[in-house]
Amino acid sequence: MPRWDPEAKERLRAAALELFAEHGYENATVTQITERAGLTRRTFSRYFTDKRDVLFAGSEQLPAAMADAVRRADPVLPPFPALLAAMIDVGELLADMAPHAAQRRAVIASSPELQERERTKLAAVTEAVVEALQERGATESSAKLLAQVGIAVFQTAFERWSDQPKDTDFAARVREAAAELTANLAT
Amino acid sequence: MPRWDPEAKERLRAAALELFAEHGYENATVTQITERAGLTRRTFSRYFTDKRDVLFAGSEQLPAAMADAVRRADPVLPPFPALLAAMIDVGELLADMAPHAAQRRAVIASSPELQERERTKLAAVTEAVVEALQERGATESSAKLLAQVGIAVFQTAFERWSDQPKDTDFAARVREAAAELTANLAT
Repeated sequence: MPRWDPEAKERLRAAALELFAEHGYENATVTQITERAGLTRRTFSRYFTDKRDVLFAGSEQLPAAMADAVRRADPVLPPFPALLAAMIDVGELLADMAPHAAQRRAVIASSPELQERERTKLAAVTEAVVEALQERGATESSAKLLAQVGIAVFQTAFERWSDQPKDTDFAARVREAAAELTANLAT
Repeated sequence: MPRWDPEAKERLRAAALELFAEHGYENATVTQITERAGLTRRTFSRYFTDKRDVLFAGSEQLPAAMADAVRRADPVLPPFPALLAAMIDVGELLADMAPHAAQRRAVIASSPELQERERTKLAAVTEAVVEALQERGATESSAKLLAQVGIAVFQTAFERWSDQPKDTDFAARVREAAAELTANLAT
C-alpha cells in the first residue's frame, strides 16, 4: 500500500512551482514536474489530480474550516473580533504553504484562469463566513461586509507573513493589518 | 439613422430582468426579451451584445471611472477618505441601475457563470483602485487592503441604497457603511 509521504508531496510542489516560474504555467507538464521531483506519475496522482491542483489542493476545506473557527471562537467576542480569532486559528494550518506563497502568488497572477479559480475559492470562504457571522448575531448585510473585510485582512496578513515568516508570527500580522485598517478608517 | 433612446434601453433591461426571474437566466432568450419589450432584435443590438450584456453593460468603464475619481479627490485627503469620496462620485453614475439592482443581484446569485463574471468585474475595479491609491502615497500592500475594503463598503452601501433609495442618498449610505465598519473594528 502506498505510504503517505509529506516529503514527496513537498518535492512535487516545489518542482511544480519552479517549472511554472521557468516555463509558464500553461507550458509546464505533469511529466516535467514528476521528472524534476525524481518521482513517478503514480506518486503525483496520490497527492494531486492535475497541475492546477498543486496550487489549490486543500482549499476545498478552507470554507468549512474558517466557518467552524468562527463558530468556535469565544462566545463573548463580537462578530469581527471572533472572525479575527478564527483567521489566526486557520492561518496556523496554512503554515506549510508559507514557504511557497510568494511563488504561488506570482503563478496565479500570470494566468486569468488561475486568478478566476482563486477568486472562486475566496468567494466560497466569504460565503461560509457570512453564515457563521449571522449565527453570531450579525445581520446578513453586516455579515457580508465584515466577511469581505476580514478576508482582505487575512490575505494581507498572510501575504506579509509569508514574505517574512521569521520576523513575527501570523497572529501578530493579523492584528497589525487590522490595526492598520482601523487607523486608515479613522483618518 | 437610429436614435439613441434611453427609454428603449430601459424597456429592454426591464423585460430581460423579468424574463430571467420567470424562466431562469439560462432559458430566457433575446427573442423573448425583444418581444416582451415590444422592440426589434435590431434595437436590442444597438444597446447590448447579448443577454449577459444586459447585466454588465457599462461595467467595463467602472475600473477607469473609479481610479480617475480617486485621482481627482481632494489632494489633502489620505488614501481611504479619498477612496470614499471617489465611491460617492461614481455611485451617482450608477443611479439608473438602482431600480433594478435587487433583481440583478438575484439573477447573478442564480448562476455560477454570472457570479464569476461579477467577481472578475470587481477584481478589475480593485486593481485599478490599487494603482490610484499608490499614486496617492499608499504602499502596494496597504493599497490592496484599502481597495478591497473600499469595494466591500461600496457594495454594501449600493445594496442598501438600491433596496431603499427613497430613504437617503448614496453618499449617506457610504458614510454609514464605513462608520459601521469602524465601530466593528473598534470592538
